Order: sequence, then structure tokens, then C-alpha cells
Amino acid sequence: MPETTVQLADLTVDDFLDRLASSDPAPGGGSASALAGAMAAGLVGMVAELTAGREQYAEQDAAVREIGAAAAEHRRTLMTLAQDDATAYDGVVRARRLPKETEADQAARSVALRASMLEAARIPMQIASESLDVLQLAERIAPIGNKNAVSDAGVAALLAAGALRGAVLNVRINLPYLAADESMRTEAPAELARLEELAGMLEASAAAAVDARIGGS
Amino acid sequence: MPETTVQLADLTVDDFLDRLASSDPAPGGGSASALAGAMAAGLVGMVAELTAGREQYAEQDAAVREIGAAAAEHRRTLMTLAQDDATAYDGVVRARRLPKETEADQAARSVALRASMLEAARIPMQIASESLDVLQLAERIAPIGNKNAVSDAGVAALLAAGALRGAVLNVRINLPYLAADESMRTEAPAELARLEELAGMLEASAAAAVDARIGGS
Repeated sequence: MPETTVQLADLTVDDFLDRLASSDPAPGGGSASALAGAMAAGLVGMVAELTAGREQYAEQDAAVREIGAAAAEHRRTLMTLAQDDATAYDGVVRARRLPKETEADQAARSVALRASMLEAARIPMQIASESLDVLQLAERIAPIGNKNAVSDAGVAALLAAGALRGAVLNVRINLPYLAADESMRTEAPAELARLEELAGMLEASAAAAVDARIGGS
Repeated sequence: MPETTVQLADLTVDDFLDRLASSDPAPGGGSASALAGAMAAGLVGMVAELTAGREQYAEQDAAVREIGAAAAEHRRTLMTLAQDDATAYDGVVRARRLPKETEADQAARSVALRASMLEAARIPMQIASESLDVLQLAERIAPIGNKNAVSDAGVAALLAAGALRGAVLNVRINLPYLAADESMRTEAPAELARLEELAGMLEASAAAAVDARIGGS
């Protein structure tokens, strides 16, 4: 049975992984993507912490502190979205189980199913957008953050890009279930393509900055 | 102060993220990569759970069960490696803090530093190798697992590939600190290139299978 009440952020890491691996559809790929994005934001925050206030990086101090504060904000939002995605998916499961005996049943079930599917597409769209913001922060801090932590900025970029692409898959799998004239259904493909294109550019730019600073290899 | 005793798997997700974002260097990008790989393994396990025993997928039942069991094993190993990476990094921090007043101090510190850096390169090498195995499982289940969960197989492939590349960065940043004749230092670059090449191929193959099954987009 889906449990909408459990707070994923309060589970132990092992319990979260157990629930991910279970046959319950939630938490699933959407929540995992959001948590990957939250880890990316956490790593950006760590790089900012290891840079701010150090003489060697004084010139970038204001930028680094701003990046760190923004990362903390996105981390909170992504954890909320991890929860929302699980809740949205539970909603889909509940709608699927509604009675479909009478015509009235079927009409009510169809309305509930469409509404829950719209939410199940809307949440990962937000996860993708938030992950793009985190990727942008990783790309900004990679060339200016503490050099000893440049691999952490690189991991942040990789995980944020993976989170974005994972969220995109979760939008795409739900789109066919939306009403043909639903604006999300008609507008999402172009927005997903835009997010993926930006992600590719930012990821390449972050990787170039990391490669230039990581030393001999 | 680094705390080697805390078990990352027993922290709540929020506490883990707090520690990731803190100025303590551990847990850092290596542990985050390992956890991303463990999430990927968890998602492969979920897809296997949603496929095994269903008539529609009977032909692939044995393969799916084998993939699910292997994913559970890799998930455990990756969580152990997440812990080991944090411990290894604490070892580096401890070695850096050793006294360096006398020549004997300096010699002892240098030996301790090299040993701790070797461990800090060895662990992410294992994380990369384990993540490749998980990526392979995701690539195998994407075309044969429950179609309703194909986006989860896709997210698993993305997170496993990100985990692998993140671990590679963590090996690379530590290599320059190893002795010039250390076999890890001389042999790692070729092994890292091999892992990254395989990851690129498996990720593309998984993405093609997901795209073919995810429906209209």
C-alpha cells in the first residue's frame, strides 16, 4: 500500500534505498532524481563553505557566498519535490484503483486519473528546472571555488545533469496520459528539449573547468 | 572535526545532506557518487520487483530475477564504499595534521600522507567499477523490464553513469599525490579511460531502449 504520510527526508539513507528498491512504485525515479539534485546542491554548498572567507579566494567571496546560499535554497526545494513526486505517484495509484463499474464510476475515475497524471508530470518538470539551476551553480563555482574541492564541484555538475535528465524521463512517460488539449502535454516537449540542451552546454562547461584545475591525470 | 564513527547509511536523508553541505571534506563527492550508484541499484531492484512473476514478462523471468539479486548486492557494496570513502578522506585530513617539526616527523607524515592518499584513490576506483556493474544491469533491464517502469530503468542508467564519472574525478584528483612509481598512479589513467568508454556505450544503449519504450513524446 502506498503511504503518503512518510517523510522521505526523515528516513535513514538505508530505509530510503529499501523503499526505492521495493515494488511500491513510489518513491521511484522522480524522487531519486530529486535526491540526486539535492546531493548536487549539497556539494555546491560544501565547495562554497570551503572557499568563503579564505584570503586566496577573496576576489570571488561575494559570488561564492551567493552561490552557497542559492544552493541551500534549491536543496530544500528539491527535497520537497522528492516528497511531492512520491505523493503524486500515490495519487495515480489511488485513481487507478477507483471503481469502474457504472458509467458514472468510469467518468469520475477518468477525471481523477487525468488530474493525478497531470500532477505526476508537473512535479518532475519542476525537478528538472530546479536541477538546471543547481547545474548552473555547479558550473559557476567550478572555476572559482577552492581548488582542492574542484572534484566535488565536478560531481555536483554530473549529479545535477543526471537529475535533470532523469526528471525529463519522468515527465515524458506521463505525457501520453494527459488530455490531448492539456497545455502541459502540448508545451512540455519544447520545454524539455530546451532544458536538455542547456544542461548539455552547462555540463560541458563545468567539465572543462574541472579538467583544467584537477591537475595531472 | 572528522568523525569516522558515524554510519552514513543510518543518518536520515536530511542529516546526510547536511553533512555533505558542511565544510567537513567528508562525506564529499566520493560518498555522494557511491550513494547515487546505490540509488541506481535500488531503482534496478524496483524494476525487477515490478517485473518478476508477471505472466506478461514470463520469458524474461529468470534474467530479471538474476538482475534484481545482483542489484541488491551492488547496492550493499556501494553503501559500504560510501562509508569507506568518508573514512579514507578522514585519514587524509589526519595525516595532513601530523607534526612536521623534525625530519623524523616529516618522514613519518609523508609516509602517512601517501598511504592515506592511496586509499583515497583506491576507494573511488572501486566505486567507479561497481557503478559500471550497476549501469550494465540498468542497460539489461531497460528493454525487458516492466514497461510502466521503463523511466525508472532510464533514471538508474543516468545515475549509475553519473556515479561512475563522479568517482573517476575523485580518483583523478588524488593521483598526483601518489608516489611516481606507485602502480595505482601509473595504471589508473588507462583503467579510468576504459571505464568511461564502457559507460558511454552502455548509457547510450540504455537510453535507446528507454526511448523506444517510453511512448509518445
